[in-house]
Amino acid sequence: MSMNNLGIVKRNIVRADEAAVAKLSRFGVASIHEAMGRVGLMKPYMRPIYTGANVCGTAVTVLVHPGDNWMLHVAAEQLRPGDVAVVACTTDNEDGMFGDLLATSFRACGGLGLVIDAGVRDVRSLAEMKFPVWSRAISARGTVKATLGSVNVPVVCAGMLVEPGDVIVADDDGVVVVPRERAAAVAVASEAREKKEEATRKRLAEGEFGLDIYGMRETLAKAGLEYLEK
Amino acid sequence: MSMNNLGIVKRNIVRADEAAVAKLSRFGVASIHEAMGRVGLMKPYMRPIYTGANVCGTAVTVLVHPGDNWMLHVAAEQLRPGDVAVVACTTDNEDGMFGDLLATSFRACGGLGLVIDAGVRDVRSLAEMKFPVWSRAISARGTVKATLGSVNVPVVCAGMLVEPGDVIVADDDGVVVVPRERAAAVAVASEAREKKEEATRKRLAEGEFGLDIYGMRETLAKAGLEYLEK
Amino acid sequence: MSMNNLGIVKRNIVRADEAAVAKLSRFGVASIHEAMGRVGLMKPYMRPIYTGANVCGTAVTVLVHPGDNWMLHVAAEQLRPGDVAVVACTTDNEDGMFGDLLATSFRACGGLGLVIDAGVRDVRSLAEMKFPVWSRAISARGTVKATLGSVNVPVVCAGMLVEPGDVIVADDDGVVVVPRERAAAVAVASEAREKKEEATRKRLAEGEFGLDIYGMRETLAKAGLEYLEK
Amino acid sequence: MSMNNLGIVKRNIVRADEAAVAKLSRFGVASIHEAMGRVGLMKPYMRPIYTGANVCGTAVTVLVHPGDNWMLHVAAEQLRPGDVAVVACTTDNEDGMFGDLLATSFRACGGLGLVIDAGVRDVRSLAEMKFPVWSRAISARGTVKATLGSVNVPVVCAGMLVEPGDVIVADDDGVVVVPRERAAAVAVASEAREKKEEATRKRLAEGEFGLDIYGMRETLAKAGLEYLEK
Amino acid sequence: MSMNNLGIVKRNIVRADEAAVAKLSRFGVASIHEAMGRVGLMKPYMRPIYTGANVCGTAVTVLVHPGDNWMLHVAAEQLRPGDVAVVACTTDNEDGMFGDLLATSFRACGGLGLVIDAGVRDVRSLAEMKFPVWSRAISARGTVKATLGSVNVPVVCAGMLVEPGDVIVADDDGVVVVPRERAAAVAVASEAREKKEEATRKRLAEGEFGLDIYGMRETLAKAGLEYLEK
Amino acid sequence: MSMNNLGIVKRNIVRADEAAVAKLSRFGVASIHEAMGRVGLMKPYMRPIYTGANVCGTAVTVLVHPGDNWMLHVAAEQLRPGDVAVVACTTDNEDGMFGDLLATSFRACGGLGLVIDAGVRDVRSLAEMKFPVWSRAISARGTVKATLGSVNVPVVCAGMLVEPGDVIVADDDGVVVVPRERAAAVAVASEAREKKEEATRKRLAEGEFGLDIYGMRETLAKAGLEYLEK
Repeated sequence: MSMNNLGIVKRNIVRADEAAVAKLSRFGVASIHEAMGRVGLMKPYMRPIYTGANVCGTAVTVLVHPGDNWMLHVAAEQLRPGDVAVVACTTDNEDGMFGDLLATSFRACGGLGLVIDAGVRDVRSLAEMKFPVWSRAISARGTVKATLGSVNVPVVCAGMLVEPGDVIVADDDGVVVVPRERAAAVAVASEAREKKEEATRKRLAEGEFGLDIYGMRETLAKAGLEYLEK
Repeated sequence: MSMNNLGIVKRNIVRADEAAVAKLSRFGVASIHEAMGRVGLMKPYMRPIYTGANVCGTAVTVLVHPGDNWMLHVAAEQLRPGDVAVVACTTDNEDGMFGDLLATSFRACGGLGLVIDAGVRDVRSLAEMKFPVWSRAISARGTVKATLGSVNVPVVCAGMLVEPGDVIVADDDGVVVVPRERAAAVAVASEAREKKEEATRKRLAEGEFGLDIYGMRETLAKAGLEYLEK
Repeated sequence: MSMNNLGIVKRNIVRADEAAVAKLSRFGVASIHEAMGRVGLMKPYMRPIYTGANVCGTAVTVLVHPGDNWMLHVAAEQLRPGDVAVVACTTDNEDGMFGDLLATSFRACGGLGLVIDAGVRDVRSLAEMKFPVWSRAISARGTVKATLGSVNVPVVCAGMLVEPGDVIVADDDGVVVVPRERAAAVAVASEAREKKEEATRKRLAEGEFGLDIYGMRETLAKAGLEYLEK
Repeated sequence: MSMNNLGIVKRNIVRADEAAVAKLSRFGVASIHEAMGRVGLMKPYMRPIYTGANVCGTAVTVLVHPGDNWMLHVAAEQLRPGDVAVVACTTDNEDGMFGDLLATSFRACGGLGLVIDAGVRDVRSLAEMKFPVWSRAISARGTVKATLGSVNVPVVCAGMLVEPGDVIVADDDGVVVVPRERAAAVAVASEAREKKEEATRKRLAEGEFGLDIYGMRETLAKAGLEYLEK
Repeated sequence: MSMNNLGIVKRNIVRADEAAVAKLSRFGVASIHEAMGRVGLMKPYMRPIYTGANVCGTAVTVLVHPGDNWMLHVAAEQLRPGDVAVVACTTDNEDGMFGDLLATSFRACGGLGLVIDAGVRDVRSLAEMKFPVWSRAISARGTVKATLGSVNVPVVCAGMLVEPGDVIVADDDGVVVVPRERAAAVAVASEAREKKEEATRKRLAEGEFGLDIYGMRETLAKAGLEYLEK
Repeated sequence: MSMNNLGIVKRNIVRADEAAVAKLSRFGVASIHEAMGRVGLMKPYMRPIYTGANVCGTAVTVLVHPGDNWMLHVAAEQLRPGDVAVVACTTDNEDGMFGDLLATSFRACGGLGLVIDAGVRDVRSLAEMKFPVWSRAISARGTVKATLGSVNVPVVCAGMLVEPGDVIVADDDGVVVVPRERAAAVAVASEAREKKEEATRKRLAEGEFGLDIYGMRETLAKAGLEYLEK
């Protein structure tokens, strides 16, 4: 099935391994991104609607037409416990496609949160519900239900390819996508990275310099860095 | 009087009916916007300076020159209890035209809040005062008092036409403008809408799908939506 | 030494007078900017990563290459108690160049905060540490350590020239730069301004108009402002 | 009829006086804007699709939904010789709503050009046809025909209110809207302005300074301008 | 091989069928995009550096680090006659990564043009060489050669997924990506579409309305469109 | 004199050496920027108003208030043959501050062109006059003459510090600033660079790879670049 086909709902998708997802949920977005080799991030305009929001789950992808949230209702039925809806739009759009009614429906289906490259509304209610959302905009503007998109096709969301079943991790730093088949390995690498950082943090707190801890002085000198006394 | 005339202050404006304004104050921006037929919203770059800000009042409009807040001082005198100042600029500008001194003055005149398509400053003080402001930017940059604008002429603010006396409702979702003569009818429609939504919310929470509640399955099928099993 | 030279670290810089810095720390950014004659502000896209952040200290400047935070490690060693790191990039870039490890290191050296015309990450940890940061973006995207920049050369950061040793004051309203040699005078002028504003605030709160307090009625009339009764 | 009502086509609109339009067609956008008292301009992101494009005609207004050009087909039938279509969208959108087929249709109806706060495509063909268009974007992205908008209702296009029948003048400098009832007076004022500018141009070309021609030296001195010799 | 892996050059890629590419070269971007079912377009910020630029060829993809054009030199060696280089960056960047020297090299290898989600320079020389380029920016800013990216891995460029060997068609309207395996079918559909449009164009030129040609009157009425006489 | 002081005109500035300026005029912006060590460029949003515009001259700097072009009239009198006016604004502004009348005046004084971090108008006339301008916007919006700025103080224009008398070189690639005292040395370095590039261009045209000419293969391998056959 080609990317971007319109008018399609794929019912049965393969989701990332549950244990790997559980393990990934313990790490921050920045750590996971580094553990993956510095790839996988959505663009930084994707911001949480409230401070402290965080989520880790498997992607149910949605492709919508600008100003039209019809497919979000279709997507609700495809959500399984542990899923995160990931919504891409065929063109840049900031309309408020999602609000507290859809959040109620998503949650009733086991949906954990939403990542949407468009706008959302009812943000005060969403924050009170503790329903985590990352979006490109907050907008009260309502949408129509007139044009088909798709559910569970590969999408490009905020500059990143997302396949149905991939792991989505999001926190105050942004949103990272872990390809389904890499989930377990990335979880292991993230854990290793966080351990190593913990050790480094202690040394830095005691006043050691990164220049020494990471052994940068020689490479800096070789690159030509010059220290001037005045 | 033509739109956009400069150098004019209209003293006596007709404000929306008080009871209608009071009724509108009970509803959210998203509901009112839908109740109006999905019109009336300012652009989503207009954001509250603190979470939870909300206001509902009658518009006193102000047209200013970029980098110049002279007319805000003129506007203070035209505010009546229950008014919200709505400031448009002749060109895009983010300077901090409004701060805690003007807020003190506006409040002393009964002004309830500010909607400004420019910048504001002293935002910590404004938040402590609980003086609600929606703006396109936060900026400490000061302005001069050198060029005339107007007060109580029709203005385009953040993409929306505002006439003096219209109702302005603003919350975390944005800012909506209810034309004066439609205020009562929109309040009624908003109430109906919120009631209906409350009922829908319950059904969604219990696991019913919007697809069924809104009867979408047939129209989706007719539009050609295809479900694939794999 | 010419502006923008790459590959240089200036070890010994002259910092603004400590007493002047201490005095400046009592005033807000908006007041200081006005007291300087309405100059000195960085562009308003520079935002604090948490509400209520504020800092006042002496600038250690850093010039970096996009996607590369090598020089931040070099800069850590140049920080003295009371310093604020000011990071400019040779080109627009939003990558997350700074996180909680570097914050730990900066703090261990006495660094008070960061102003960076690029992105930062680990923002939840930074907020918990109460390490104040102003940035153009929040982004988890990691950076490399491959290309030289400079430390303690004059830089243009968010549209404003910063020389090493200048005073940096930042709060919810933005970031202002006070040239080192003007620090004492600006502190005096800021104090005078805040006192005067306090008096004005009282009069405004009692219902006097700025039109009268500032004596604007005559100049407005002379400029041609027309009051219409209807 | 309220602004922004959706689903309406007003068939009979009152157009600006033909002679006034003809006279206005001789002047540039900048001159007309100044002659109107420095008002009436759309935002500067509205750019012609080819250098040297210019048009002067009466507005047939169109309000569309994002990603949907249905109403442009409806609008074609409402165009009369001498009209310029002015398209506003309910929300920011850059899709290519208009191309050479619609241009062919518009021209067949006597339409002179297009001003659209969205995208256009087939720009090479449009340039070859010498069909002048001002738009916010060039985009090949196609649109659907699924959601109603309106024709000949007042709209806000690129920040400016346009009523059906107003005069639209556009050239390389942008787009200005002359309210229907002011057309004749603005034409007279524009002519006077251009004459005066011609005389000033000669004096400036001969080396006189604007400082003297406009008599600015005294006001500058009074404002405190200081000349330093070194 | 996973998307976005860094430090990899894939030498042997499968390119789209030559005959299909040749056929596609006869159609415009807008037609091809419609023929594909309204998908495949890059974002509209990708603009040609000179009017009239157009290209049709097979993609050699490149992933680069911001401010670093090292991989473009690596890519030159992978170009075959008929290829178009498609450059994505790991983060938003507008530096001038490509100029007339690289164009000379690309052309010597048979490269037909460049699509780059970053900046280019030497644009006057490139226009004189008639070397077609689509970019997000024009910038003289030079880059370093210090950090690895990849060649011939799948990339997301200006919001669209591009696999090595896909067909890239670009003209004044923008850039469209035709997946390799769909090239022949899309060429056939594009031809059909252009023929049909030619017939429609004639009818429109003679004054028929799209409303009648496309049979829209009934659906508009059913959707509730109301014609008002005044 | 401190940067950014308002209300000052410095009459006698030291301009870069005439011979150095003449020599620099033979090189492109990209070459000069590289010859300077990859510094000195304004941000790439500064674009020429017509293709092929180019200029090389000494800076007369102007600092203006948004929406106010008063100081441009003051600046005209300070221009000497060979000067280029460089206009910075205290805050982001796109108003059309400069048109054909001021261009006539500037040319009469020997002014060669304009670099303005704001808007310009009358662009068709300016192009016909062959008066080269680089600006952030084209806008017909007129300005007032009410607030003082300064002439011949150091300014930050489009992100770059410009001192009066510095050399400004601008072409289709953008605008570069050469500090006065470095002009002669940079001219020499630019010449060397262009010669070297000419030789490289020939080798590339004959099919040699940059990988070999610049000797990159070994460093790439050392950095870990991996070639995959499939």
